[in-house]
Amino acid sequence: MIMEAITCDNPNNNSRYPLAGRNNLKSKSIFNVNGVKIGGTEIVVMAGPCAVESQEQLLATARSVMKSGAAILRGGAFKPRTSPYSFQGLGQKGLELLAEARLDTGLPIVSEVMDTRQVELVSQYADILQVGSRNMQNFPLLAEVGKSKKPVLLKRGMMATIDEYLFAAEYLLNQGNEQVILCERGIRTFETSTRNTLDLSAIPVLKKLSHLPVFADPSHGTGHRWLVPDMAKAAIAVGADGLLVEVHNNPEEALCDGSQSLHPEEFEKMMADIGRIAEAIGRAIFTKESILS
Amino acid sequence: MIMEAITCDNPNNNSRYPLAGRNNLKSKSIFNVNGVKIGGTEIVVMAGPCAVESQEQLLATARSVMKSGAAILRGGAFKPRTSPYSFQGLGQKGLELLAEARLDTGLPIVSEVMDTRQVELVSQYADILQVGSRNMQNFPLLAEVGKSKKPVLLKRGMMATIDEYLFAAEYLLNQGNEQVILCERGIRTFETSTRNTLDLSAIPVLKKLSHLPVFADPSHGTGHRWLVPDMAKAAIAVGADGLLVEVHNNPEEALCDGSQSLHPEEFEKMMADIGRIAEAIGRAIFTKESILS
Amino acid sequence: MIMEAITCDNPNNNSRYPLAGRNNLKSKSIFNVNGVKIGGTEIVVMAGPCAVESQEQLLATARSVMKSGAAILRGGAFKPRTSPYSFQGLGQKGLELLAEARLDTGLPIVSEVMDTRQVELVSQYADILQVGSRNMQNFPLLAEVGKSKKPVLLKRGMMATIDEYLFAAEYLLNQGNEQVILCERGIRTFETSTRNTLDLSAIPVLKKLSHLPVFADPSHGTGHRWLVPDMAKAAIAVGADGLLVEVHNNPEEALCDGSQSLHPEEFEKMMADIGRIAEAIGRAIFTKESILS
Amino acid sequence: MIMEAITCDNPNNNSRYPLAGRNNLKSKSIFNVNGVKIGGTEIVVMAGPCAVESQEQLLATARSVMKSGAAILRGGAFKPRTSPYSFQGLGQKGLELLAEARLDTGLPIVSEVMDTRQVELVSQYADILQVGSRNMQNFPLLAEVGKSKKPVLLKRGMMATIDEYLFAAEYLLNQGNEQVILCERGIRTFETSTRNTLDLSAIPVLKKLSHLPVFADPSHGTGHRWLVPDMAKAAIAVGADGLLVEVHNNPEEALCDGSQSLHPEEFEKMMADIGRIAEAIGRAIFTKESILS
Repeated sequence: MIMEAITCDNPNNNSRYPLAGRNNLKSKSIFNVNGVKIGGTEIVVMAGPCAVESQEQLLATARSVMKSGAAILRGGAFKPRTSPYSFQGLGQKGLELLAEARLDTGLPIVSEVMDTRQVELVSQYADILQVGSRNMQNFPLLAEVGKSKKPVLLKRGMMATIDEYLFAAEYLLNQGNEQVILCERGIRTFETSTRNTLDLSAIPVLKKLSHLPVFADPSHGTGHRWLVPDMAKAAIAVGADGLLVEVHNNPEEALCDGSQSLHPEEFEKMMADIGRIAEAIGRAIFTKESILS
Repeated sequence: MIMEAITCDNPNNNSRYPLAGRNNLKSKSIFNVNGVKIGGTEIVVMAGPCAVESQEQLLATARSVMKSGAAILRGGAFKPRTSPYSFQGLGQKGLELLAEARLDTGLPIVSEVMDTRQVELVSQYADILQVGSRNMQNFPLLAEVGKSKKPVLLKRGMMATIDEYLFAAEYLLNQGNEQVILCERGIRTFETSTRNTLDLSAIPVLKKLSHLPVFADPSHGTGHRWLVPDMAKAAIAVGADGLLVEVHNNPEEALCDGSQSLHPEEFEKMMADIGRIAEAIGRAIFTKESILS
Repeated sequence: MIMEAITCDNPNNNSRYPLAGRNNLKSKSIFNVNGVKIGGTEIVVMAGPCAVESQEQLLATARSVMKSGAAILRGGAFKPRTSPYSFQGLGQKGLELLAEARLDTGLPIVSEVMDTRQVELVSQYADILQVGSRNMQNFPLLAEVGKSKKPVLLKRGMMATIDEYLFAAEYLLNQGNEQVILCERGIRTFETSTRNTLDLSAIPVLKKLSHLPVFADPSHGTGHRWLVPDMAKAAIAVGADGLLVEVHNNPEEALCDGSQSLHPEEFEKMMADIGRIAEAIGRAIFTKESILS
Repeated sequence: MIMEAITCDNPNNNSRYPLAGRNNLKSKSIFNVNGVKIGGTEIVVMAGPCAVESQEQLLATARSVMKSGAAILRGGAFKPRTSPYSFQGLGQKGLELLAEARLDTGLPIVSEVMDTRQVELVSQYADILQVGSRNMQNFPLLAEVGKSKKPVLLKRGMMATIDEYLFAAEYLLNQGNEQVILCERGIRTFETSTRNTLDLSAIPVLKKLSHLPVFADPSHGTGHRWLVPDMAKAAIAVGADGLLVEVHNNPEEALCDGSQSLHPEEFEKMMADIGRIAEAIGRAIFTKESILS
């Protein structure tokens, strides 16, 4: 058997991923979500709680991440949880609270959709639809999200190869949806000192193979709050076009992922730190001022 | 941090998986699908093509596996494929062909469901709903399949721990669906000489932790036709309650998974071989005669 | 980049592993260690404690495994331990106790060698030199063991691909040492319910690619005593030419690997169980009587 | 079973690794190798060819990496190769060439030792003894290298957990050798687009658990030349105390690891790039001028 490895040196990549692969016409996709330019020189930070828990929690967190320079607010209304006995999210109520927080802060919203039947509902509230790691190969969901034409944040499956990941993006793109953001969020390995192993080399590999913007999620990638700022810096240094970071106004009381959520003041410091890294590589962090300029 | 490992020596397993875990009342689930007893002493073999391709292909394959002793016919009408450009299955037409093959052979049918919106449709045709490896943590799908009350074949995610797997079963069981079959089908490792690494130790581990019947899929577990019979024998020796095996009347022309599909005559020989292993451990292969007796 | 996968369908394997690979002249290596035929139809069981701890412990264990049908006695005098603060083995004193146990039971001895400087010493006592999993790519050790001309039990590295494993065997063979036994002992994966994941598919893969005998080690492969007999049965069913099993006369007090060591009575029952599996596939367990016949 | 996870939040780490773990007396080890300060604020870059091939190759490469700011010259005289038929290194002749290159450039030398019997020889030439990934758990070698009192570069095993890695360091330290450098070099995962997956989160984890300096090897970590500079930047951003980088004056003709070796001009550019990242986090690259100041 001769197996053709999918590497960056392979001239057949273009034909392998006709829409997601780089080609002569398109070396980089840049698109605009409510004034936030994604895939450009400026780095976009999406931040917020793992799950929307209450108006108070969401607004407090949203305001603080906005002040620290986040460009997009994240928050889960429908939550994929390992156990059926864990908090499953507020559902539509959560989406309403997100819309309220958008009104309050001016930040566009990204929120996860898990079910083909929810795509229409979530699209009414969210500015970006998130497809989570466990659903990266949920092909009916990809098709439905593709049809929605909403910008999509497609997270890498924790078990997915780069090859499978780009094919998942292809499922979205071939429905006519061109606004796809990739996001490395850690893969499963034998190492147990971190929740996952954040595969930062995937970022330059994806950027070489594809024209799509590539983000990193250091929160799920590590599972430990104290590791998030260091890995965020590394992700920027390696070329990520943006970050997805969990922040909670009170992580110790969080209903989900508290141990990997930053305190607002930690997030503020992280934003300053990554700003310096961005500058060192000739980039900058996208801020509200970026919109006006 | 003290982490409580989920092992068979842990007395807390019962409370961890209240429905899927073993408990004093239930050491083993046994249930009946159209006369086929699952989870009992007799071993049940599900066989058939990866995908339903045509009436001719399906009937030829169905008749041959029936003659060789398969108790249930497998065949995919909706196929989860890595690439959107691969054959995606015949959909409802495929289900109709499966129903026809059931009429012809008398074998109950197992077929995969990928979308919450398909559960009702697939339930009208299939006797057992299959939830595939990529959907093991598709929680809305699990809930919908759980509500259907149809027997379910829940395959282990290729990157799922035993712990996550039992929680996925819990999602089915807590909707009131008690007829859940587990199936080890290979996990993803660094080794590339096989498509996956069939984790046969998962079978006794699952049987110790849970009362649910546990099957093995040596076809996906290896990816190579010539390895399937050997691994089938090993699966029976280690205690599997059944097998899921891909057979195709003409594997070289198969639209899907041809390289891991057995020729009918290879399947026939495999059935004889596993019969001897079953006997050596005091079990037997379930056959049509088993129904009558 | 075109990568040539090392699979059983690859006609280039012969030239890849000129000595370890199958070729026209040699489809199967069979050799004799003190009357015990390795690689033939009969299955050879090596059993004994992880580490030699005392005369009393070794003799009691050796006598019991001999009575139950083991053909070779295993026991470590030099132990590779993760921590420098764990018991490191009795060294030469352990080898002397092994020689004494050989005299007492008539069983040939297999014992591990970890250092090029120990090869001569261990060769004076052991009938088979074991190269452990952590030393599979200790190339100077392989060369030295290869020169010794003693039969070698080369365990698969817990992180080694089949391809790397056969190259390690090649390092032994190209020193003129033709008596090499391969042994699958579990690979490292993400799953934590077992110590390693015993990759039983490696056994038929290795037997197809190479003429060397292939054993399995269900003790290290699982890490849990209760799993050992089931996995031993599976290993025989899949075609292993022998087993390496840890047995201890008092596992609860063992200085090393107690949790995966069988009690003598568990080993006795396991031997009867695998005998039935061996018979089902047309093989038998090698016993003392095999020598006389 | 209750398993105590080895994490940074675990107050028992100190007693787990009495010498390698952080403790009240020692938060950070800093030591001096021929004027090069390791573990301090300044970042130390070790660079050079995978293998010493000839005087011309080594001198040309050594001079170029020196000019670009490398502080230490790497080069293998004894090479651990997967196949016995690959180039195995020049042995003592290679060490002599390294000594010559040191004389020529003034750079201290790091070179690998693979065999307990070579420790004395390699120590006569090298300023730092490298223990490679495949030998991380070669315990007799660790003990012998520990006794030598030479500074040691201990690379992480490609399949070793952080916990096992710190115990390997403990084997060196408890022989009285305090000058141990750790080096993350990529772990083995399912992903095949890179040779290994460089686990950058291991760097802050190791620095939190241990006082030892922590380096990164983006060459072996990726296996692809074009990925090395990006991952080098990420490694510095995440806090690495130094880098180990393969550079070859003519990578296309290299006898070993050519595809991951930088051209001299690529290395020069990389040094400028990491200098900017170092500055952004308040550090600097160690240069010859650092010695004089």
